[in-house]
Amino acid sequence: MNTAPAPDFDDGFRRHLAELLAWRRDVRRFRPDPLAPGQLDRLLDLACLAPSVGLSQPWRFVLVESEAARAGVIAEFEAANAEALGDYRGERAALYARLKLAGLREAPVHLAVFCDEATGQGHGLGRRTMPEMLAYSVVTAVHTLWLVARAEGIGVGWVSILDPQAVASLLAVPPEWRLVAYLCIGHPQEDQAEPELARAGWQNREAGSRTLLIR
Amino acid sequence: MNTAPAPDFDDGFRRHLAELLAWRRDVRRFRPDPLAPGQLDRLLDLACLAPSVGLSQPWRFVLVESEAARAGVIAEFEAANAEALGDYRGERAALYARLKLAGLREAPVHLAVFCDEATGQGHGLGRRTMPEMLAYSVVTAVHTLWLVARAEGIGVGWVSILDPQAVASLLAVPPEWRLVAYLCIGHPQEDQAEPELARAGWQNREAGSRTLLIR
Repeated sequence: MNTAPAPDFDDGFRRHLAELLAWRRDVRRFRPDPLAPGQLDRLLDLACLAPSVGLSQPWRFVLVESEAARAGVIAEFEAANAEALGDYRGERAALYARLKLAGLREAPVHLAVFCDEATGQGHGLGRRTMPEMLAYSVVTAVHTLWLVARAEGIGVGWVSILDPQAVASLLAVPPEWRLVAYLCIGHPQEDQAEPELARAGWQNREAGSRTLLIR
Repeated sequence: MNTAPAPDFDDGFRRHLAELLAWRRDVRRFRPDPLAPGQLDRLLDLACLAPSVGLSQPWRFVLVESEAARAGVIAEFEAANAEALGDYRGERAALYARLKLAGLREAPVHLAVFCDEATGQGHGLGRRTMPEMLAYSVVTAVHTLWLVARAEGIGVGWVSILDPQAVASLLAVPPEWRLVAYLCIGHPQEDQAEPELARAGWQNREAGSRTLLIR
């Protein structure tokens, strides 16, 4: 039980928080040097402060260290990426082929994050009409990890060009665990304010997403 | 294009960020006074800095202001909550009935957050094998909103005891928009370091969620 007084956040903190959000990036270009001893543990402890439906805490982590497992994931990525390329034509296909979409070979840390769909924790509260709340809770833990990593100068890249069942099978996790995120984690080669996909000409940020209807 | 130098976050910022994560709460007890002028706009602008698959930015916001729409949502919540109560027996049912699970009547702001499942933005990148990435992107925007609100002393409560199709229909949004989150936003009655569900005896935080398998 935390009996400290509630923190009072000031303008300086809020300005830095906005900078953190603006400079968080999906990183695909890593330096190969490892994280500091204990750093990943600290980041995971902070990630577990994320919200979860009914306090179900359904996030489960798998650190992928063996060469065999990593090679299997890289092969899955390459197969899925080749299939994705087949969906595009002409200039868009040429552009897709030039994108660097994952840092799987360079990143010192591979972390797979699963949702335990069978957890009894939380006693089902809040997920009767929206069962997807369980996976959404895992997403908030991934996003928390992303932010606290960036605050330590560590980059995170979320690789979704993967068959989630194939990865779950490759990593031999319990059958009720569903892959939510496969993360590459490490020191970024550079800091960037602009998303890589915008710099590469794939997609810019659009103001339209800020649509606010009134009802 | 942001040409400022990359920010260098220090220990003081990281300590405050950890406090922000620790003191973020799912708030169900609001004071009725409104947000400051322009405050919601500022929070939404920050929320839109969230990551999104392929830079698809699929989040769409609906500010629910009319009494009729709010009454409809409250009726949906009450029906779904009564059905949920029917799933529990004995002590657990009595405990469920005593929980306060939403602040829909008191919160000055009701914000529904949808995912535009039909958006062409991002050109489908990163969601061929994991189409759920689009909704997950909206979740990161909701989580960002939650954190920046807390940094301004504003509480957010995520109400998932709702039929998402019924809410979409009630709010007359485009058919391709899927409800991800229905949020109550306002000044919290009090700051708390412990989740309300833990204080009420429903569910404690468990260390087991921190499971880390090695593969």
